Amino acid sequence: MINKTEPRTLPGFMELMPNEQILFEQIKEKIEKTYQKFGFLPLDTPILELSEVLLAKAGGETEKQIYRFEKGDTDISMRFDLTVPLAKYVAKNYGNLSFPFRRYQIGKVYRGERAQKGRFREFYQCDIDIIGDGELSIVNDAELPSVIYTVFKELGFDDFTICVNNRKILNGLFESLKEKENSVEILRIIDKIEKIGKEAVIQELEKIKVAEKSIQTIISFIEIEGTTDEKLQKLKELNIENENFKLGLEELTQVIKYVRTFGIPEKNFKVDLTIARGLDYYTGTVYETFLNEYREIGSICSGGRYENLAEFYTDKNLPGVGISIGLTRLFYKLNELNLINANKKSIADVLIIPMLEDFSEPIKIANNLRKQGINTEIFLNDKKLKAKMKYADKLEIPFVIVIGEDEIKSGIVKIKNMITGNEKESDIKDIAEVVKNLQI
Amino acid sequence: MINKTEPRTLPGFMELMPNEQILFEQIKEKIEKTYQKFGFLPLDTPILELSEVLLAKAGGETEKQIYRFEKGDTDISMRFDLTVPLAKYVAKNYGNLSFPFRRYQIGKVYRGERAQKGRFREFYQCDIDIIGDGELSIVNDAELPSVIYTVFKELGFDDFTICVNNRKILNGLFESLKEKENSVEILRIIDKIEKIGKEAVIQELEKIKVAEKSIQTIISFIEIEGTTDEKLQKLKELNIENENFKLGLEELTQVIKYVRTFGIPEKNFKVDLTIARGLDYYTGTVYETFLNEYREIGSICSGGRYENLAEFYTDKNLPGVGISIGLTRLFYKLNELNLINANKKSIADVLIIPMLEDFSEPIKIANNLRKQGINTEIFLNDKKLKAKMKYADKLEIPFVIVIGEDEIKSGIVKIKNMITGNEKESDIKDIAEVVKNLQI
Repeated sequence: MINKTEPRTLPGFMELMPNEQILFEQIKEKIEKTYQKFGFLPLDTPILELSEVLLAKAGGETEKQIYRFEKGDTDISMRFDLTVPLAKYVAKNYGNLSFPFRRYQIGKVYRGERAQKGRFREFYQCDIDIIGDGELSIVNDAELPSVIYTVFKELGFDDFTICVNNRKILNGLFESLKEKENSVEILRIIDKIEKIGKEAVIQELEKIKVAEKSIQTIISFIEIEGTTDEKLQKLKELNIENENFKLGLEELTQVIKYVRTFGIPEKNFKVDLTIARGLDYYTGTVYETFLNEYREIGSICSGGRYENLAEFYTDKNLPGVGISIGLTRLFYKLNELNLINANKKSIADVLIIPMLEDFSEPIKIANNLRKQGINTEIFLNDKKLKAKMKYADKLEIPFVIVIGEDEIKSGIVKIKNMITGNEKESDIKDIAEVVKNLQI
Repeated sequence: MINKTEPRTLPGFMELMPNEQILFEQIKEKIEKTYQKFGFLPLDTPILELSEVLLAKAGGETEKQIYRFEKGDTDISMRFDLTVPLAKYVAKNYGNLSFPFRRYQIGKVYRGERAQKGRFREFYQCDIDIIGDGELSIVNDAELPSVIYTVFKELGFDDFTICVNNRKILNGLFESLKEKENSVEILRIIDKIEKIGKEAVIQELEKIKVAEKSIQTIISFIEIEGTTDEKLQKLKELNIENENFKLGLEELTQVIKYVRTFGIPEKNFKVDLTIARGLDYYTGTVYETFLNEYREIGSICSGGRYENLAEFYTDKNLPGVGISIGLTRLFYKLNELNLINANKKSIADVLIIPMLEDFSEPIKIANNLRKQGINTEIFLNDKKLKAKMKYADKLEIPFVIVIGEDEIKSGIVKIKNMITGNEKESDIKDIAEVVKNLQI
């Protein structure tokens, strides 16, 4: 007698049932195909890296969450995002890549966060980045919203907003207010306005001793309202004499112009001056994306422009712009809100059920269907018809064909649609044709 | 000035260039689509598991290779195959699965092997398994070779052999020779005959004190030659009075019968009585697959029948049969032998090169191509035409369309085939049609 270990999965690690997994794979594939539609190249990097390499830049919160360990003499860490491995890859292979280097990567990353419902320690990120060699035109910053738009349309969403801002505008504003030293802190505070509200933001700004007048300017700045063009106009009318501010506004205006050219409807993007995204990474355009009826999910696709991808590995100046979809969390939330439906339970479109001692003829029929591109399962176990039909019912395979001696003799089978219950007769050699016409 | 860390990848971890990655993804996708063609369900399990769960069975060599570490109070291990996580999954979700449970899983696994050329510490396994609840018909053992056959045909191979054997035949033979206690050791030795030759096998058998007469029987047994049917006939004629032997021969005969029904040509399978596969795991049918001209690669797809998948987690009796392709090593070897060719360098089929200040019209053309299903990249950076064409050349994007003021004015563009150098004129609104007809 073997001692049994309780089969369990680590908390914070998603493990799906087959129907959910089918849906997850469909969503992942739609994201991947969209990334490919824009010509991005695939990349796969190891999940394990030398800690020295992976953590060349990291620090603070990030470093605490890392899965880090020694194997032999080697200090190893698990990747916590796909950007640092990209930086390593581009620096390492600089001479062999063509720039702009446009890559997508879909893979698991690891963060040992506090366990909590809806928080995952292992999760998929779906990233695209465009890396320039020395320079990268601002028009690239407008292409990424076009990718975001196409992805979420493909996933069946309509009511979402891609929020765009430019960090230079914010930074320029703070410089003009002589609050540059406080800017990281101020950004952190105004980034929270969505969560904590205006009054709390003012209080926090007072706490760090921002001048009363500056607080007024900051608040009236982040409260600029109107259409996209009105916002851009109002920003211009602020007449802030600061190079960064002007450059940021110029970039944002360009991005908005091309976002329109890329065909994104007005209702699916807007300028949102409160978005700052992180603290010291992004330097220009920043994005966040929200499902308008479910803002509580938070941003479902974020990213932005950075000045230098790989400064910790190389002297080369590699500006880039990128976005990331946190797929595991997104899937969890959409599922929880019943916005997606894991109703497909089978990969097979046809189930063949032999009611014969000898499976040879049914197997030949299955062979033929597979050759004609139809995903086909054949029930190869010796059970009563009732048990076999129960299996078909439970798996919800769309079409079932029972094959007994009568069918072999007559050469005619019945194709049963398991949803409607309807049956359609078919000559054995025409099953593939008939099934294709029945629309799976 | 930031201190630079040398960007490097851990030894034993594969990281490919974009053209190789495109090929790798194509192969992976072909394997996956074939698995789906047979109706297998997708599964994804965490890469990290509780050590107590993952190592419930492991021991010896395996355990030494595990990446194992503590995070907080939790003793964690990285998965070293996809079978143990499957066992955990099936035991955990037994009540919610339909049996036979047919799943595929394609994912990375980790083994801290000695670093060596062509050996990987992180590698993809592509597995399928069929798990029965209490019983599983022998016909399933014949379906898996059909999957193997379809996969390697899809990958463009023709000259490969799926070798089939049955462990019960071997075990029964040893029982009849009263060498049951030595059987694990004898299996280990005869499993090496391919590598070390007959004489060395005899010597090793003598060393463990197998009787002279028994060695003769063992050798003449593993040297049984002839066609598949002749081999089965000769096994029968050995008249070995042992239940296991008889059952194994019966099973093997059934498997061969149905392997033929599944349409596998005679040249692509054979009975190979020397195959034992591992020591204590497989209990019936076993498989190995070889590229006939490149036997030195070793088996490219292996597996077999096991009596009980999850005995370390549950009392349920869950017999199964499965196969696995070690994709990372296979890719490495095929690439090294030039049996595959990473000649596709781009995901985009069309590159649009604007020669205008304003990118609006070229972007609209790109939008339209993408909508019509054509992977399209647009060069968004401000470079001289020469630099833009160099990029197109280097990436080998099949079709290039330069768009300047003349093209906008006339509404006519030239679609350049970058391989032949030929150009074809097209009305701007017909580009998608024309490109589709040019065959990408």
